[in-house]
Amino acid sequence: MSLLVVGSVALDTVETPFGQVSDALGGSAVYISAAASFFTAPVRVVGVVGGDFPQDHVHFLESRKIDLDGLQVMKDGKTFRWGGKYHYDLNVRDTLFTQLNVFERFDPQIPPGYRTSGYVCLGNIDPILQRQVLNQISKPRLVVGDTMNYWIETKPNELVHTMKLMDVIIVNDSEARLLTQEPNLIKAAKKIIRMGPKVVIIKKGEHGATLVTEDTIFAAPAYPLENIFDPTGAGDSFAGGFIGWLARTDDVSPDNLKRAVIYGSTLASFCVEKFSVDGLKELSYLKIHDRFRAFMDLSRFDEK
Amino acid sequence: MSLLVVGSVALDTVETPFGQVSDALGGSAVYISAAASFFTAPVRVVGVVGGDFPQDHVHFLESRKIDLDGLQVMKDGKTFRWGGKYHYDLNVRDTLFTQLNVFERFDPQIPPGYRTSGYVCLGNIDPILQRQVLNQISKPRLVVGDTMNYWIETKPNELVHTMKLMDVIIVNDSEARLLTQEPNLIKAAKKIIRMGPKVVIIKKGEHGATLVTEDTIFAAPAYPLENIFDPTGAGDSFAGGFIGWLARTDDVSPDNLKRAVIYGSTLASFCVEKFSVDGLKELSYLKIHDRFRAFMDLSRFDEK
Repeated sequence: MSLLVVGSVALDTVETPFGQVSDALGGSAVYISAAASFFTAPVRVVGVVGGDFPQDHVHFLESRKIDLDGLQVMKDGKTFRWGGKYHYDLNVRDTLFTQLNVFERFDPQIPPGYRTSGYVCLGNIDPILQRQVLNQISKPRLVVGDTMNYWIETKPNELVHTMKLMDVIIVNDSEARLLTQEPNLIKAAKKIIRMGPKVVIIKKGEHGATLVTEDTIFAAPAYPLENIFDPTGAGDSFAGGFIGWLARTDDVSPDNLKRAVIYGSTLASFCVEKFSVDGLKELSYLKIHDRFRAFMDLSRFDEK
Repeated sequence: MSLLVVGSVALDTVETPFGQVSDALGGSAVYISAAASFFTAPVRVVGVVGGDFPQDHVHFLESRKIDLDGLQVMKDGKTFRWGGKYHYDLNVRDTLFTQLNVFERFDPQIPPGYRTSGYVCLGNIDPILQRQVLNQISKPRLVVGDTMNYWIETKPNELVHTMKLMDVIIVNDSEARLLTQEPNLIKAAKKIIRMGPKVVIIKKGEHGATLVTEDTIFAAPAYPLENIFDPTGAGDSFAGGFIGWLARTDDVSPDNLKRAVIYGSTLASFCVEKFSVDGLKELSYLKIHDRFRAFMDLSRFDEK
C-alpha cells in the first residue's frame, strides 16, 4: 500500500570515534522513506530542501523508487543542516549546531496524488505542521507519529492535540518519561494510550524497543552489534521499517505489529553500521529477512 | 543437585517512594538462597551474622529448607547493615550507610558436608574470599560468580585472578563497561569471556539481561512491572533463580542456560514487587512457572 512520509530532509555533519562525514544525507523523512522503500511502494516524501541540495542525494532517493513530487525546493535558500558529535560511549551525543534554513519556513503541501495514501508516517516536526498534514489528506488506514523532547517541552498542548490523531506513536524512553512525568515505562506507555494513540512504541537504543497496547506488551531486543559507526537515523530507520512492513502487508493485527517492530529494529541495526544512509544503500530484502530470522534466534527460548 | 551459596547476610534499611523498612532481611546470600530454594535442595549457605540477628529471619530461611550449618554467628558482634534510599525514578539509588560490623571479619569456612556441592554461587564479596571458598571445595559442576564496581576499582588484579575460576559471571551493564573499559556491551562481554568465564550475563535492570557465550547471544526482557516497590535484591534473586534452575536440571547446555536466564528474571521480578524478601515469601513453583510462560508471550513473534 502507498505510504506518505513527512519530515525533515537534512545535510548532517557527524563525528563519531570512528570517523566523520560532512553534509551527508540525513533527516527524518530521508531515513524513514529509505527504510520503508525496501518493503512497499509507492513511498511519497513531503519535505523541503534548498538550492544547495546535492543532486547525488536526489539520485539515491530516486534509486530507492521514492516519489519526490512532494519535495519542495526553495532555490534561494539553504538546506537544513545539523551537526553532532558522538562520544566513545555512543549513547552520549552533543549537538554542535542546528541551522534550520529553509526548514524554518516549511509549510507541508500535500500534492493531490498523495492525499489518499493508505499509510502515513509523521517524522519529528512541529506538532502543528503534523496536524496540518493530516488535515490535507483523506482518512488513512494508519497514522504513525514521532516527536521529541523539544516539542514536549515547548509545545505540549499542540502535541497533545496532535497525538489524538495518531494511531501509533514512537518515542524513546526519556521522551515517554518527560511526556507523562512517570518514571515507570509501562505506566508511562499506558498514560500515553489514554492520550490518544492506541499503540505506543518506546525505543530504548541498545536495549531494544517495547510495544504497548491496551492489552499487549511486546519486548523486542536490539540487534547485538559489536561495531556501531553512526547512531544517527536509527530511530527514523526503525519507524520506516515498522510502517514499511505494515504498509506492505496491510495488516495491523497485534501479531503483525510485533513483526513490524522487529523489521523496524532490523532496519535500525543496518542503519547504524555505516555513516549517514550508507547502511541502507547496499541492503536487500533478502538481507533484511535474514536479520529478521537472527532476531528470532536472539530472543527465543522454550520450556524444558 | 546441591547448591552452595556464599555471600552477605544483612539487615537492610530501605526507603523508596512507596514506603520504608528498617533492619529487614537482606544480603546477597539471603536473596540468592531464597530464590534458588524454589528449584533445588539442599541449598547451603555460608555467611556470618552477629548476635543481634533476629530469630524470625532464621525461621524464614529454615522455612525455605535452606541449610544454615555454614552460617557463622559471632555473638559478640553486630550484623552487617546497609541503608539506602531509592528515588522516584527507581534507577537512582543513594547509599545512606554501610556498617560492615561482623562482615569485616568474614572468613568463609566451608563445612565438610558442603565441600562436594555440585553448584556454587559466589555472591558479591571480596574476590580474595571468593577464591578462598573455591580452594576449600572439590571441583564443582558449575561456579557462578557476582562482583561489583567496588571490587573492580579497588582489587582489579584479585578479581581477574578469581574470574578465571568462574564458569559464569553475572554483572550489570555499568560493571561490564568498567571492568573492560569498553562501552559496547557485546564487545565488553566478549572481552570478559577472554578473561576466563565461558558465560557472561549482563543484567540491565528494567531492560532485561543478555547472556553471551563464545557463540551464543540471548536477549531476555525484564518482566514489565507497573509497580516496583523495592529494587533491593533483584540482582541476587536473578542469580538465585538462574543457578537454582541449573542445579535442579543439572543441564548446562545453551538452551538450558537460556531457560535459566528467564527463571532468574522471573525471580527478580517477584522480588521487586515487595519490600525485602517479602516478594519471595508467598511464592510457589506454580506461580514461578506461570510467569516463565508470561515471559514467553512477552518476547515471542513469528514469521508471516
